[in-house]
Amino acid sequence: MVHPDGIIEMFTQQVKWNEDGLVPAIAQDWQTGEVLMMAWMNAEALELTAREGRGIYWSRSRGALWRKGEESGNIQHLKELRLDCDGDTVLLKVEQVGGIACHTGRRHCFYFKYDEGEWRTTEEVLRDPSELYGSKQ
Amino acid sequence: MVHPDGIIEMFTQQVKWNEDGLVPAIAQDWQTGEVLMMAWMNAEALELTAREGRGIYWSRSRGALWRKGEESGNIQHLKELRLDCDGDTVLLKVEQVGGIACHTGRRHCFYFKYDEGEWRTTEEVLRDPSELYGSKQ
Repeated sequence: MVHPDGIIEMFTQQVKWNEDGLVPAIAQDWQTGEVLMMAWMNAEALELTAREGRGIYWSRSRGALWRKGEESGNIQHLKELRLDCDGDTVLLKVEQVGGIACHTGRRHCFYFKYDEGEWRTTEEVLRDPSELYGSKQ
Repeated sequence: MVHPDGIIEMFTQQVKWNEDGLVPAIAQDWQTGEVLMMAWMNAEALELTAREGRGIYWSRSRGALWRKGEESGNIQHLKELRLDCDGDTVLLKVEQVGGIACHTGRRHCFYFKYDEGEWRTTEEVLRDPSELYGSKQ
């Protein structure tokens, strides 16, 4: 990202962005270790995540920056930010406000559990999505 | 994947493969919750993972199936297999044999930690890669 003063942050240059300028970003609960979600980041999202200390992603469907929790209030406070050996995946350790990371109202997004050839739905819905997102949902 | 008897596994059809026929797959230590690595799977890798009960990925660099640990012996016993809300990311909870998931000889791949604008190397090398991979490395 280019700052108003023209400086490009070095640490985002060390990331190996894919052909769309994105990398996968895994968000994990900093205390329980639970994997909450996987989203994508561009360089701007990564830099803003580091600077603002909260999970900020790139929404591929909307083609826009996505400040996680901007609608639901369930923001992610960044506790630790990591990059992997190949430089092409980011890991965020976060405090998930509201205890709900998934847009379905569940604690995390990985609620389909493989069982004998099928994906079975697990994890209860803690809040109805219509409550989380109001009339938009 | 098409079986020898022509049956295609239903559960792989419910996955939203990207334009290359792949999805990101996150491997997590089933006991500590530590995120070990992120790799990619095609439908065959996912089905073999489920069938054989071990982490099997698709190596994009080699363009081939990658049975994690096939060279180093550090295989991943599958304890749980999950899919996320969008059906486009897989999560494996595994027992990491040898306690080393990273090809650099570290416990996991996310050893670059963000600290004031820089990625700092953390996590000690438990085994020299030349020991893990012999003369190939």
